[in-house]
Amino acid sequence: MESNITRRKFVLAASSLGYAMTADGFGVLPKASHGTLKTFPLSDAALQSGNATAPARPKVLVFDVNQTMLDLNALRPHFVRAFGDGKVLDEWFALLLHYSLVVTVADAYADFGTVGRAVLEMLANNKGVKVSADDTTRILQGVLTLPPHPDVPESLKQLKSAGFRMVTLTNSSPSAVKAQLQNAGLTDYFEESISVETVHRFKPDIQVYRSAAAHLGVPADELLLIAAHAWDVFGATKAGWQAAFVARPGISLLPLGPKPGIVAPDMRAVAAALLK
Amino acid sequence: MESNITRRKFVLAASSLGYAMTADGFGVLPKASHGTLKTFPLSDAALQSGNATAPARPKVLVFDVNQTMLDLNALRPHFVRAFGDGKVLDEWFALLLHYSLVVTVADAYADFGTVGRAVLEMLANNKGVKVSADDTTRILQGVLTLPPHPDVPESLKQLKSAGFRMVTLTNSSPSAVKAQLQNAGLTDYFEESISVETVHRFKPDIQVYRSAAAHLGVPADELLLIAAHAWDVFGATKAGWQAAFVARPGISLLPLGPKPGIVAPDMRAVAAALLK
Repeated sequence: MESNITRRKFVLAASSLGYAMTADGFGVLPKASHGTLKTFPLSDAALQSGNATAPARPKVLVFDVNQTMLDLNALRPHFVRAFGDGKVLDEWFALLLHYSLVVTVADAYADFGTVGRAVLEMLANNKGVKVSADDTTRILQGVLTLPPHPDVPESLKQLKSAGFRMVTLTNSSPSAVKAQLQNAGLTDYFEESISVETVHRFKPDIQVYRSAAAHLGVPADELLLIAAHAWDVFGATKAGWQAAFVARPGISLLPLGPKPGIVAPDMRAVAAALLK
Repeated sequence: MESNITRRKFVLAASSLGYAMTADGFGVLPKASHGTLKTFPLSDAALQSGNATAPARPKVLVFDVNQTMLDLNALRPHFVRAFGDGKVLDEWFALLLHYSLVVTVADAYADFGTVGRAVLEMLANNKGVKVSADDTTRILQGVLTLPPHPDVPESLKQLKSAGFRMVTLTNSSPSAVKAQLQNAGLTDYFEESISVETVHRFKPDIQVYRSAAAHLGVPADELLLIAAHAWDVFGATKAGWQAAFVARPGISLLPLGPKPGIVAPDMRAVAAALLK
């Protein structure tokens, strides 16, 4: 387990281990640097050595919800029924993430559920499949009753007992996350759920992290995001937060941007790193 | 063919046919409206009837490049070799589109080639596949030598002969699009290639369209985007442009936002609609 956990101030990783990738393909001409954008070799053994100064103990742990704490795989049977192929769940969620940013950059925010429904309809049209109203409801309502990953409740309990302040920050709407935490039995671990609704931009828009930090009244570098999404870690570290990446099976980091201080295979390992 | 082509001022489609979707799933509480966001029924027969005032003849046709004019399928054999599965091309391009917006909203722009290389490495890690440097180069360089879709050269010739001003607007870097158009034999149809590099944000960020309109010195509603991407059409129409959606096989519109004035199955049908 230890070799999978790295603790190191993200700034150090970005400055001492980062190097700019040369671009080819779409980019043709090599570029020496892209401003603050740094890349890192994911396999660099030095990243595992832990010979850096530990970061300040975070004041608030900020948890992502979907995939990080809750298991989206519970939706797979609905996609088997609707599309005849459970893998369409992954296509749908990828489209949802992409189009949540499409509406963000086009200054046309709609809540996550509305985008989720729209991309579900688009995906069905792309595939020439007619998804019934019942199946659509099963999928969209199913998001509200996702079970927690088995490693999550015990880890939250440990972290709460250790005195960390804990909140959620998700792209789900306020009413949706309320239902999700309630149904997963996780409500009591969190002092509040911070929503993207106030800024009308989805994660990883840097304004979401800045607005959350201002709301909490905590300096950026005393906040630590815990997420199983490379893009969430990318945005949070760009905003100056600490981050823990939950590298669940089949999920890895983007080799661009600051390296998060903690990279661990599940929530139990994240908690162990934080409690060390 | 005719029944697949609709011409209508986007404003009309948005205001007279639009209605707000109720949100459930992630959104739970129904919302009466999301500001200017409107949805439309994709199958509405009224959209095909053409009983609306035709829009002003556009001054400049603005062409998207990848997928719209050039055929990404030429990369598929490289993905068969690198991943043992040609369908990974679609996953890679979807990730590239998503992460181009991730770096945009996180205020950490890197060019399309750099993002393309980074998500290729991430995808390989996700799948536990080691992609060789040669295969990476074949994919990224392959983007520069994509062939045009067979319906493209003749359609561009017709539109150029009809006196339209024609430019490209792509997420590819300036040096990449120069090589792409050259290798596809399309350079001479366009008076210039407008780049996202000047604003350091990728399409469909609304600033890209606004900046392009300012650069061309043409009012938004006299510009017409031609693209095979729902997200591109979404951004352009949000910026007040006219749009033509090239609904290539397996690609459909997002049922949110303004309806583009032209929806056609290929570039030949788009040209026919514009020349009518």
